[in-house]
Amino acid sequence: MAAAQKTAMVPEGLWAQPLDERAAGEAIYAIAAEIYPICRSITGNGVRETLRRLARHCEIDVHEVPTGTQVFDWTVPREWNIRDAYIRNARGEKIVDFSSSNLHVMSYSMPVRGQFSLAELKKHITTLPEQPDLIPYRTSYYAENWGFCMPHRQFEGLPDEAYEAVIDSTLEDGSLTYGEYLHKGESEDEFLLSGHICHPSLANDNCSGLALLARLAKQLHDVKTKYSYRFLFAPGTIGAITWLARNEEKVPRIKHGLILSMVGDGGGPTYKKSRRGDALIDRAVSHVLRHSGLNATILDFSPYGYDERQYCSPAFDMPVGLFQRSKFGSIPQYHTSADNLDFITPYSLGQSYRLIALTLQVIETDAVYLNTLPKCEPQLGKRGLYDAIGGHKDVAARTMAMLWVLNLSDGKQSLLDIAERANLPFALIQSAAELLKQQGLLVLAESSFGLSKLGFP
Amino acid sequence: MAAAQKTAMVPEGLWAQPLDERAAGEAIYAIAAEIYPICRSITGNGVRETLRRLARHCEIDVHEVPTGTQVFDWTVPREWNIRDAYIRNARGEKIVDFSSSNLHVMSYSMPVRGQFSLAELKKHITTLPEQPDLIPYRTSYYAENWGFCMPHRQFEGLPDEAYEAVIDSTLEDGSLTYGEYLHKGESEDEFLLSGHICHPSLANDNCSGLALLARLAKQLHDVKTKYSYRFLFAPGTIGAITWLARNEEKVPRIKHGLILSMVGDGGGPTYKKSRRGDALIDRAVSHVLRHSGLNATILDFSPYGYDERQYCSPAFDMPVGLFQRSKFGSIPQYHTSADNLDFITPYSLGQSYRLIALTLQVIETDAVYLNTLPKCEPQLGKRGLYDAIGGHKDVAARTMAMLWVLNLSDGKQSLLDIAERANLPFALIQSAAELLKQQGLLVLAESSFGLSKLGFP
Amino acid sequence: MAAAQKTAMVPEGLWAQPLDERAAGEAIYAIAAEIYPICRSITGNGVRETLRRLARHCEIDVHEVPTGTQVFDWTVPREWNIRDAYIRNARGEKIVDFSSSNLHVMSYSMPVRGQFSLAELKKHITTLPEQPDLIPYRTSYYAENWGFCMPHRQFEGLPDEAYEAVIDSTLEDGSLTYGEYLHKGESEDEFLLSGHICHPSLANDNCSGLALLARLAKQLHDVKTKYSYRFLFAPGTIGAITWLARNEEKVPRIKHGLILSMVGDGGGPTYKKSRRGDALIDRAVSHVLRHSGLNATILDFSPYGYDERQYCSPAFDMPVGLFQRSKFGSIPQYHTSADNLDFITPYSLGQSYRLIALTLQVIETDAVYLNTLPKCEPQLGKRGLYDAIGGHKDVAARTMAMLWVLNLSDGKQSLLDIAERANLPFALIQSAAELLKQQGLLVLAESSFGLSKLGFP
Repeated sequence: MAAAQKTAMVPEGLWAQPLDERAAGEAIYAIAAEIYPICRSITGNGVRETLRRLARHCEIDVHEVPTGTQVFDWTVPREWNIRDAYIRNARGEKIVDFSSSNLHVMSYSMPVRGQFSLAELKKHITTLPEQPDLIPYRTSYYAENWGFCMPHRQFEGLPDEAYEAVIDSTLEDGSLTYGEYLHKGESEDEFLLSGHICHPSLANDNCSGLALLARLAKQLHDVKTKYSYRFLFAPGTIGAITWLARNEEKVPRIKHGLILSMVGDGGGPTYKKSRRGDALIDRAVSHVLRHSGLNATILDFSPYGYDERQYCSPAFDMPVGLFQRSKFGSIPQYHTSADNLDFITPYSLGQSYRLIALTLQVIETDAVYLNTLPKCEPQLGKRGLYDAIGGHKDVAARTMAMLWVLNLSDGKQSLLDIAERANLPFALIQSAAELLKQQGLLVLAESSFGLSKLGFP
Repeated sequence: MAAAQKTAMVPEGLWAQPLDERAAGEAIYAIAAEIYPICRSITGNGVRETLRRLARHCEIDVHEVPTGTQVFDWTVPREWNIRDAYIRNARGEKIVDFSSSNLHVMSYSMPVRGQFSLAELKKHITTLPEQPDLIPYRTSYYAENWGFCMPHRQFEGLPDEAYEAVIDSTLEDGSLTYGEYLHKGESEDEFLLSGHICHPSLANDNCSGLALLARLAKQLHDVKTKYSYRFLFAPGTIGAITWLARNEEKVPRIKHGLILSMVGDGGGPTYKKSRRGDALIDRAVSHVLRHSGLNATILDFSPYGYDERQYCSPAFDMPVGLFQRSKFGSIPQYHTSADNLDFITPYSLGQSYRLIALTLQVIETDAVYLNTLPKCEPQLGKRGLYDAIGGHKDVAARTMAMLWVLNLSDGKQSLLDIAERANLPFALIQSAAELLKQQGLLVLAESSFGLSKLGFP
Repeated sequence: MAAAQKTAMVPEGLWAQPLDERAAGEAIYAIAAEIYPICRSITGNGVRETLRRLARHCEIDVHEVPTGTQVFDWTVPREWNIRDAYIRNARGEKIVDFSSSNLHVMSYSMPVRGQFSLAELKKHITTLPEQPDLIPYRTSYYAENWGFCMPHRQFEGLPDEAYEAVIDSTLEDGSLTYGEYLHKGESEDEFLLSGHICHPSLANDNCSGLALLARLAKQLHDVKTKYSYRFLFAPGTIGAITWLARNEEKVPRIKHGLILSMVGDGGGPTYKKSRRGDALIDRAVSHVLRHSGLNATILDFSPYGYDERQYCSPAFDMPVGLFQRSKFGSIPQYHTSADNLDFITPYSLGQSYRLIALTLQVIETDAVYLNTLPKCEPQLGKRGLYDAIGGHKDVAARTMAMLWVLNLSDGKQSLLDIAERANLPFALIQSAAELLKQQGLLVLAESSFGLSKLGFP
């Protein structure tokens, strides 16, 4: 892990300057901390306020889709907003207060105001008996209901008395809100970067992902890229479905995609492959993670999780994977009040940022080259590319990378293919290719995948 | 193993009622016990008597093929029958008696009646020095010979005196006998179920297999199946060769097949794949065994063993595998007097029956479906198919099965493909598909393998 | 390893008599010992003298290629020769003497004669601090330089005084020398056997390989082979490049090839696959090594090592692998004075010889056959090919080999395919095929790869 905070891992071809992982981590943490208190749900002002804050970093277009709009098999629901909520005991004391944590209220709770016996009230309270000090996060989007969430320890100690329960919410026709930012590249082919914006005060899930996306969008702004990058900030499930229903014609343009969620904890990293399993994005992230020096896990696709469920539904089957640190559902903090600002760190956010940046580097610079002197090895020594004194047992990694690139650049194998076969980091292979290209020993192949007509450098 | 005796593992689509594994095991044991004492060989009255007993359970057609009939490279041999056999010592005591165990006589022994010195007699006696208390099972079908088998301990204690050896057998022109039962399904495509009927009093090898086949045939009788099921009770090697020589035109119809032998001991289960290695029967049995909770072994094909040697010979290359409990030849009881009625149990026979039944279920119900709402997920919640309260870490296996079926039902992947990728039991996937079909979310694909024109439900 | 010195492992079809591994090992050792003292480099009289000695065993054609000849991206260098070299201390004592070990002089050292302070001299001395008693082997072919190599312990003890350093070498226009021997077979298709001839007194690297090649060439002389065998004794890198540049038209004829280096130590065996990875030579050597009973290692291709770098460059991509005992660079003796005649043994050389001979046997005799009685098994018993007494648990390996050959000889799978699937040694499968062919149960398939038109037996 000592290597994790290095700044020079990303070649400078794509990025204006070497990636400063530490600065990135701190900037992302600051954004996450800013949006953490907002009470988001799948609709409502929380989403709008969050997008307003993120828009300080990149020019987000905000879209409003009216309640009742049909989106494939689904219907955009009524808009939910909440001003206040609490439970008062017989002495008038607020024993549960929305203003101290928005997790206390089940998301999409109907308005309620009344007196309840303890027994009646308990039917509307959710706790975590095995994590008695934590507030759970619960929702009831598609069934009319109301409820509170509280620590189990508190729940068990409630005296048998009358309670006043108030949820000052509205559930009315309105709209569903999502945001988009498009960074235009040389090509209309797109790379989709998507994060869910529907969870209330859960720092890792998904303030971390939203914040990383905003930072990445900002950094990309002045970078000349081959692909166009589409950033999507949409509520989970219904937001992705809504976007897909309104943008079906854009789907074929999306050549690669990543969902970012829970990118700020110290676990993982974890990558869940697209349904295709062998898309370039799957290979690129897997490669970057394998060479990260971290304890990476690569998971096969399964139809449960985040919006890959929609992007990878059979009619779309998009090459979109999921990047996370700890695997969702695998950690005790998941969907509880323990997923707070102490659970995420600038250090981990910076690492995640670097891994995503390295992945973009692979996607942007992978190409197929031709060795211009393919009969025997070119004489590297006379070009100053080789140790002059022979007889040593080892050669430097740089030399090995050059030998691999020369040997496999037959017009059929891309740099990522070569990096995988050589078991060397893509960045090393790519910089070796750069050096060989400068020496005239390598030219871009006609057959490189779609890159040549762009004059991609 | 606690789960092993459950009755509800087989969906009720195929079977009239839930499979009662315990009752099946007991019924199979009773049949095996009834045919155990009969002295079978590759020809003769022992085979006929065995078929007569099995025919009480299913309508077996008995075929007689005359001695001398050419069957490919082989010739139907003379028919062997035996009435009695013994060795008497100098005091006239029967020290070896066929009537106490038919293993005492080498199968296909020529008739003999005479006085022998101990030295001469020993040339005709086979023992197992490393298992000194057991009688071995030996045959000499294709070389004229005679012999006795006895425990090595007894053999070593034989005093050096004169002995009378009598084998009252006949080896004469007659016929080879085999039995067939055909359960007709909707299709003329067949599933072959074959067991060897040539071994004398060996309970596991193969009274167990014959008995299981008879029980299965009986149970299938009133079941409406897609495939026709051909049950073959034939002597090993020459019987299978004879059937193939007389039924070459039927071979292409046989789409799947299983040989059952030694299905009553507590080992395994073991499946030996067909020569093809990736036939549907290979995948189906492997899947069922992997999800059986038992210590299953899947073996690659090899050209030694049972009648897979003939079915999988290069000109036929039939999709026929071998199901057993312990692998043949791997256990000390194999081909000895220890393979008796204590070696097999109703419990293990019931387990084997269930595994075969589950395999038939896969073969009968595997199909390719189309998700009718393939753009994003259908909203399961509004159809009552999903937990209404979100936010939990886990979903039920049933929901996961539905999500897998929806995600992969793209007209290319069958339910077995889906079960394998999801690593869920086929029965669970199949019942999820049933539910989705009822909801109109799934339709049978045109491209399902040969099933659609049958209107297979 | 008890089996290692057997003489009967190689069928007699190819070789005039059973391979005598012990005699081969001793003969190879004697050749290696004879050429060990010669000071070889990539050019010069050392190469010529070595070829002269090897030519006593096979009729080597010696080629001289003038200095300055362009060979692809390289130029044949000036010829280097050395008569004497030493360092004398202040008392006139020779403390380093070329005549005691030619490793003392860096190969391709420019001539030098002069007085040096210790500090100046040290700039021209290479040692191995971690192996303080060994002389390293160093070269400076393509950068003008001079230097001595000595044990680090001696180096550290050098008193600070004046030294006389003399290298009586010449570096002048001349030629590069390599040798070739072609054993003609029935076909013009070739099997290339190549060893580097540029290292001075290093016994394993590569006196061992040169000696094995010379012995193999001698033994093949009177053998009628299908392939022609080209033996190449050329300096590493520049020699292989020179041969390829002068013989491009022969490259397509080379269907298989092996580089032999370091074949005399007790490690390995190690095989490094060709760039193709699945060439027949890769499969053949891997098969032979897996069945060798030794601790074999099969490595994937990488573009660093011996002349596979040139043969497997992208424009040639020849099916040429590398056979060694210990992997190069993996042992402490590598490129030091410890790689002497004690490091190699007749025993290991004999083993290596056997492994190479078995590989040639595979390549020569692999073919695709057709079972002439493919419907069921042929009756082996009536042809005397099978145990007459049935009922045993095991069959002999010979019988299993026959059953495998019969089962898989469907005109598509070769004997090597069969040996791999059966997990039996190729020699056993091949002799079973021979027996079955004699019985008329097997015929050569039309589709055997290029062999039928040669009437290959």
